[in-house]
Amino acid sequence: MREIGVGLLGLGNVGAGVVRLIEENAKAIEARLGAKLVIRGAAVRDLKKERRVAIDPDLLCDDPMELAAREGIDIVCELVGGEDFARTLVLTAIAANKQVVTANKALLAVHGEELYAAAEAQGVDLYYEAAVCGGIPVIRTLREGLASDRVESISGIVNGTSNFITCAMAKGGQSFEDVLAKAQAEGYAEADPTLDIGGGDAAHKLAILAMLCFGTRVELDDIHVEGIESLAEIDYAMAKEHGFVIKSLAIGVRREAGIELRVHPAMVPQSWLLADVPDTKNAVYVRSYALGASMYYGAGAGMMPTAMSVVSDLIEVGRNLGAEATGSRPLRIQRDRPATTVIPIAKLRSQYYLRFTVADLPGTLGKLTTILGQRNVSIASLSQKAMPEAEDHVAVVALTHEALEEDVQGALQAIAAAGLLLAPTQLIRIAS
Amino acid sequence: MREIGVGLLGLGNVGAGVVRLIEENAKAIEARLGAKLVIRGAAVRDLKKERRVAIDPDLLCDDPMELAAREGIDIVCELVGGEDFARTLVLTAIAANKQVVTANKALLAVHGEELYAAAEAQGVDLYYEAAVCGGIPVIRTLREGLASDRVESISGIVNGTSNFITCAMAKGGQSFEDVLAKAQAEGYAEADPTLDIGGGDAAHKLAILAMLCFGTRVELDDIHVEGIESLAEIDYAMAKEHGFVIKSLAIGVRREAGIELRVHPAMVPQSWLLADVPDTKNAVYVRSYALGASMYYGAGAGMMPTAMSVVSDLIEVGRNLGAEATGSRPLRIQRDRPATTVIPIAKLRSQYYLRFTVADLPGTLGKLTTILGQRNVSIASLSQKAMPEAEDHVAVVALTHEALEEDVQGALQAIAAAGLLLAPTQLIRIAS
Repeated sequence: MREIGVGLLGLGNVGAGVVRLIEENAKAIEARLGAKLVIRGAAVRDLKKERRVAIDPDLLCDDPMELAAREGIDIVCELVGGEDFARTLVLTAIAANKQVVTANKALLAVHGEELYAAAEAQGVDLYYEAAVCGGIPVIRTLREGLASDRVESISGIVNGTSNFITCAMAKGGQSFEDVLAKAQAEGYAEADPTLDIGGGDAAHKLAILAMLCFGTRVELDDIHVEGIESLAEIDYAMAKEHGFVIKSLAIGVRREAGIELRVHPAMVPQSWLLADVPDTKNAVYVRSYALGASMYYGAGAGMMPTAMSVVSDLIEVGRNLGAEATGSRPLRIQRDRPATTVIPIAKLRSQYYLRFTVADLPGTLGKLTTILGQRNVSIASLSQKAMPEAEDHVAVVALTHEALEEDVQGALQAIAAAGLLLAPTQLIRIAS
Repeated sequence: MREIGVGLLGLGNVGAGVVRLIEENAKAIEARLGAKLVIRGAAVRDLKKERRVAIDPDLLCDDPMELAAREGIDIVCELVGGEDFARTLVLTAIAANKQVVTANKALLAVHGEELYAAAEAQGVDLYYEAAVCGGIPVIRTLREGLASDRVESISGIVNGTSNFITCAMAKGGQSFEDVLAKAQAEGYAEADPTLDIGGGDAAHKLAILAMLCFGTRVELDDIHVEGIESLAEIDYAMAKEHGFVIKSLAIGVRREAGIELRVHPAMVPQSWLLADVPDTKNAVYVRSYALGASMYYGAGAGMMPTAMSVVSDLIEVGRNLGAEATGSRPLRIQRDRPATTVIPIAKLRSQYYLRFTVADLPGTLGKLTTILGQRNVSIASLSQKAMPEAEDHVAVVALTHEALEEDVQGALQAIAAAGLLLAPTQLIRIAS
């Protein structure tokens, strides 16, 4: 049987999963591919380190640059992570006429356009299903399943750590710090969780998804990013009371004036499927012209789910190799079009959840609502809660009708300037 | 720009949607395909009938056999429906070296193996994303997205009519007949709804999905099929009381002894995502070795969603044509393997919901539970409900622990033979 040589750059968690899956599912893979995937080399940092998977030591090397261009390697599998060195490796592999499969979202979010162009020019495949939402085949779905459709909007739970934390907080009785510590203890959050809970990881994924959805390149800096760090127990409780669940969403919307790109906590109606996405799971909800609403749900991270996407890419690239049809899947970026305008967050129209911490004094509520009204922020419901931790403080929660973000921000500044606040105001956008 | 000639066999709802989508999304399709999809002919039954879409009358013909083999047609799009004539058309197209895209589930469920073999032998593509779950790209997902994985089980809501009816019944206050009439009035059920509500349509889809999931051919007759006609208001109410939602599921499970294939109403735990699939929507929940749980949700029918899948197939086949790589995507059936054993329903192990209609007399409950116990059917909970429509009748609802289907059926027969019943017993399997 024909053999396809695979070179692994990196043999961490995902790399070990790739080795395991290729071995365990060898027969089924051969039947589906009509060829055999053979790992011909694996580049590691430390040749002596113990591995999570049994691998012939002769296959190991510590020079990924050499492996990326080595004869006998048909597909280079980039699993080293990071941006700059990974970019060099992938460009080296492409120049050596290798097909490339990568699981590296940061690489694609930052250097994607350069790499896609290089692959296209060389006529090689560049596949990256594992880079977004781990095992969920969302890249394939957007690129092929919905190839004939026009995506109007996308709302994704694309960071498992954040979802784990918001789910735990929604149960009540725990502070953010407690929940984060628990997530770290259970391996769901890293020692430095900034990229996950701050929204940066989700922004990487949104950049890649938005490119596929809207056919345009996206600069990371154009994405408005807010994390979940400032959300308090009371926000989760109030969400529940009003029929919502708080989720960190990555949102892309096509508007007449351009596209909206934002990552932030959102109030999701309890009746939505996204509201039920549990623990560390991911889901991407898509609205498109012909299909309408669709959703793709599953494991967004983890050794075997991510390896599954990598190996499925290897199978498809292997098929393309067999048919001498690599490089035939053009990108959806329409290069001749001007880059799409990204609408600044100030111009967003949304409904808002606003939680003010004020003194329990007569007249405060009147002043608050007057300022909101003066800025065209109309209130749909208002409630006041005693705060057990501080007797003289009350929380005033306002749900607004649709308003312009810059009007809301202006009102919040005016309220702060009026000296009414005992703590910063919490703003959460309501998903629609 | 290169042109790809498309011939439409049939110009009903879906055909009209295909024409519309190709026209409306022409620019995006060209960018993604690197070629132009051009409809070069459409075969219709009545040349004079008014069409749902504007189409050049010169393109119409009433000889689908001629169009299926006509020069200048690269891809034949089979949208006539039915089994036998559609089979002849597709075989004709394949023999004439055309690529084929079809939306015909009955055709594939019955003649699939013959058609796949013919396409493979001829080296042409046979794509059928629209045949299962309309616009949800579930075929692509199973064939490519999860190509490296091993599917353990699949549970799908794959019939929109049945889901619409179970959702409406769950709200309460309406009989099955009322809800069905409403579904027919709103166009969600056909004048003869048998195929939908009886489970036959779902069985067609399960046959196709099971082939992809388990790599084996499936005979329709091997699928155990029950419809939703006999479910009463009280069953939906009792489901709710016990934390379930009734859904008609198409289920395939890989076991050591073979595979289970069944379509029937099931008690789905309210916490499952499948429980929240509303109205006419479809969803397929997959459990696989590497990825774990994943779900694919969207519009399972309708003009534009189905057309979307057809046109996405046209784009992919068009790409294969451009790369001279048609026929390169082998099927997942492993022909050299013996056909997988289908486990008969009698050997199913499940938990059950059983509703008995008995006279409100002392001793009845004791006799019922004694017979169940004698047949190794152990009861997890038991409740008794007055039936407003008949004063002397009561409904006894038993939820069982896991039991063997043939034991349960044996017990039901014995209970019937003991003369305890005033109406047939309702059995609903509990999803797990």
